[in-house]
Amino acid sequence: MLFHVRMHVNLPHDLPASEAEAIIAKEKAYSQELQRIGKWRHIWRIAGEYANYSVFDVKDNAELHEVLSGLPLFKFMKIEVSPLLRHPSSIREDDS
Amino acid sequence: MLFHVRMHVNLPHDLPASEAEAIIAKEKAYSQELQRIGKWRHIWRIAGEYANYSVFDVKDNAELHEVLSGLPLFKFMKIEVSPLLRHPSSIREDDS
Amino acid sequence: MLFHVRMHVNLPHDLPASEAEAIIAKEKAYSQELQRIGKWRHIWRIAGEYANYSVFDVKDNAELHEVLSGLPLFKFMKIEVSPLLRHPSSIREDDS
Amino acid sequence: MLFHVRMHVNLPHDLPASEAEAIIAKEKAYSQELQRIGKWRHIWRIAGEYANYSVFDVKDNAELHEVLSGLPLFKFMKIEVSPLLRHPSSIREDDS
Amino acid sequence: MLFHVRMHVNLPHDLPASEAEAIIAKEKAYSQELQRIGKWRHIWRIAGEYANYSVFDVKDNAELHEVLSGLPLFKFMKIEVSPLLRHPSSIREDDS
Amino acid sequence: MLFHVRMHVNLPHDLPASEAEAIIAKEKAYSQELQRIGKWRHIWRIAGEYANYSVFDVKDNAELHEVLSGLPLFKFMKIEVSPLLRHPSSIREDDS
Amino acid sequence: MLFHVRMHVNLPHDLPASEAEAIIAKEKAYSQELQRIGKWRHIWRIAGEYANYSVFDVKDNAELHEVLSGLPLFKFMKIEVSPLLRHPSSIREDDS
Amino acid sequence: MLFHVRMHVNLPHDLPASEAEAIIAKEKAYSQELQRIGKWRHIWRIAGEYANYSVFDVKDNAELHEVLSGLPLFKFMKIEVSPLLRHPSSIREDDS
Amino acid sequence: MLFHVRMHVNLPHDLPASEAEAIIAKEKAYSQELQRIGKWRHIWRIAGEYANYSVFDVKDNAELHEVLSGLPLFKFMKIEVSPLLRHPSSIREDDS
Amino acid sequence: MLFHVRMHVNLPHDLPASEAEAIIAKEKAYSQELQRIGKWRHIWRIAGEYANYSVFDVKDNAELHEVLSGLPLFKFMKIEVSPLLRHPSSIREDDS
Repeated sequence: MLFHVRMHVNLPHDLPASEAEAIIAKEKAYSQELQRIGKWRHIWRIAGEYANYSVFDVKDNAELHEVLSGLPLFKFMKIEVSPLLRHPSSIREDDS
Repeated sequence: MLFHVRMHVNLPHDLPASEAEAIIAKEKAYSQELQRIGKWRHIWRIAGEYANYSVFDVKDNAELHEVLSGLPLFKFMKIEVSPLLRHPSSIREDDS
Repeated sequence: MLFHVRMHVNLPHDLPASEAEAIIAKEKAYSQELQRIGKWRHIWRIAGEYANYSVFDVKDNAELHEVLSGLPLFKFMKIEVSPLLRHPSSIREDDS
Repeated sequence: MLFHVRMHVNLPHDLPASEAEAIIAKEKAYSQELQRIGKWRHIWRIAGEYANYSVFDVKDNAELHEVLSGLPLFKFMKIEVSPLLRHPSSIREDDS
Repeated sequence: MLFHVRMHVNLPHDLPASEAEAIIAKEKAYSQELQRIGKWRHIWRIAGEYANYSVFDVKDNAELHEVLSGLPLFKFMKIEVSPLLRHPSSIREDDS
Repeated sequence: MLFHVRMHVNLPHDLPASEAEAIIAKEKAYSQELQRIGKWRHIWRIAGEYANYSVFDVKDNAELHEVLSGLPLFKFMKIEVSPLLRHPSSIREDDS
Repeated sequence: MLFHVRMHVNLPHDLPASEAEAIIAKEKAYSQELQRIGKWRHIWRIAGEYANYSVFDVKDNAELHEVLSGLPLFKFMKIEVSPLLRHPSSIREDDS
Repeated sequence: MLFHVRMHVNLPHDLPASEAEAIIAKEKAYSQELQRIGKWRHIWRIAGEYANYSVFDVKDNAELHEVLSGLPLFKFMKIEVSPLLRHPSSIREDDS
Repeated sequence: MLFHVRMHVNLPHDLPASEAEAIIAKEKAYSQELQRIGKWRHIWRIAGEYANYSVFDVKDNAELHEVLSGLPLFKFMKIEVSPLLRHPSSIREDDS
Repeated sequence: MLFHVRMHVNLPHDLPASEAEAIIAKEKAYSQELQRIGKWRHIWRIAGEYANYSVFDVKDNAELHEVLSGLPLFKFMKIEVSPLLRHPSSIREDDS
């Protein structure tokens, strides 16, 4: 089941650089593992912002929350979720 | 080059049903042709709304506008555009 | 799977009264049938507004959209959807 | 009498972890006690957010305020309240 | 039980003047009757707007909705409701 | 002359508890003195929020500002003011 | 007593031109009469908008409402009112 | 050339009182000097807020910015600017 | 003197096509004449919207308003104006 | 390819002055180098705000993000991006 997610990161300016780097490295590893197993289907950077649009493919709402609340940057993010479904005009089988 | 687009359709309630159906049929054909040639890469319905999230792959801003302003439903839509790029954590070659 | 939905109805003031009444009667029957089969789990009126908060229990996002877009009042509604899951503090088995 | 409540928690990022954990544990106990005595009728997690939708069943506005302002996380929450009533289409006796 | 209500009237400009006057006359009678029996405790005009702030004293949310949805101008109003209670600093017995 | 005022208090979470309590005690005394002399005519708590709706009766805008800017909690408040007048449907002499 | 007022005019596009012109002419006469007697102290056009910022000098809120609700364009306007007072830094006697 | 400016001051609550007082004293002197030479034509306090509406008379946009960015409180202010011009209904020569 | 302007066009859907075309043709001629004489310095289409960002170079606010309110599409536009000045980092002489 | 960018700078008030000055000097050098090589085509100060409107000419979305995220003030900015294209009414060859 697909979900559209917008994540916007807002790191406090007084967070020590080393701490920020460590979290960001963990975030990258976490994201790539979820991509490899197919749960984080797409991720794009939004030009000019510390933000991304993503599409998740999870089995239900509970798994979506587990994945998102486990993000190392979770407490510094504003997250917006929209449930998606196959569009009646879509010709692409894997967008559902 | 990729763009994230949110389209929200708002048909006037006094539009005759036959006129609405004709426009919607044209919209579907237009969308599917653009999908077939690879310019409209993804389209998903947003659950509970007469709206979609889409990803376009066009050669520049001018082509994006040509494609969007040519939508049969264009004058009934609210459209929001965000330029996208490959995310540094992405492992998927075709998301760029 | 549970979804929280806020529906706000906005009937055009020039809709003939008989037409409005017919749609509202259909809406009630439609809602009660969905309640009986367990898909529309809760519905509450919001005091002072022509609006409701509802909780749906459907098998996936696609079924949620099918149910909502089939509402007789759909084209006169503003609908907001939030995916829900069991809260870690909840003691009530049927709220999941 | 029923009230719909949306609670959104925003813990300051510099709150010591032990202090945060202690408050969260108290919050859970407080919530479960209120659920057991029937005043906090429903609580659902909103997917992707540190937030919940809840339904309270209290005898009046004053009791609602007493319950909400007594939340251990109260000073870190944004709370939105809507008074509810039985919906004319509802078939469920206990949603009133 | 007290509720704070903001009502904002928006008459369509093409509503015939005689129809508008008839509704407004009914609205006044309806309001004054509710004031006489003590359910509509206060009403003030907001300077420069076709709007009012009111305080209602009703037995529960259901009665509040019955009163508000019965307003002759209801379908032309935007209504915002806030449940009230006695303020701990209040010295006035009848504000509760 | 009457004014409707909405006050929302937002105490910084790192304000020492003793300092907060001292300000709140001063605020209560200040409010009750103004109520006794008739300038602060009504005050109600808004359920679920650290906020109130109030009605002031002062001789002019300057006095309103003097009263509000003198609030011990003034620098921690968001304040919204609306000038009021007698409503043409009001039957209560003292609401003007 | 001074009030700051922002007026924004929104004429329906299907209002017949002759009707629009007649209302606008009445509006101008009404405004100039109020300026002559000193109640409408300032009026400035906001560049690029069919809108103005004005300052009124009236004896109380009730007179302000009488003046504003009497505007020939009143039903086509969005009006925002802010009560003003002499600023402690002002050196101009007539701005109070 | 005239500009309408809304200034809203938001002093951080942890700014030492002596520092705040020094800035506010400088602000007053700065404002009064600009009023004396005719560049800051009007300033009014907005009742209930730490904010003002002002009208500036400067030779161009660059001078407006120089004046505003030179305010001792500039970094603690939210400023909104609207270019003004003589209103066609105005009868006051000096409002242009 | 430079001004940044955002124009968003919203044609009523029931405007006859021939009327719309006539206004749009006039708009184009009007815009190009102002560009030729140097008052409308830049105009760019915003991708995906019936909207533009423009920069005007006029002698004062009054001329800006004259130019904008003379637009054939003025009554169908939402216009937002920001006064501009040379940026201290700019190296381009003609951007001032 | 052209992009319209609004940048709003919000320096934390407790940033040491020397640190702020160093970043601002780097920002200026960075901006001027990008202007010299033609990627940052226009930059204007918005009167009364610590903000600018800019136009960038880059080869694609990825280069736009590289340029913007490399700004020394990036982490203190709110940035809004709109893709631009030649307007059909434009007579200026270099605005495309």
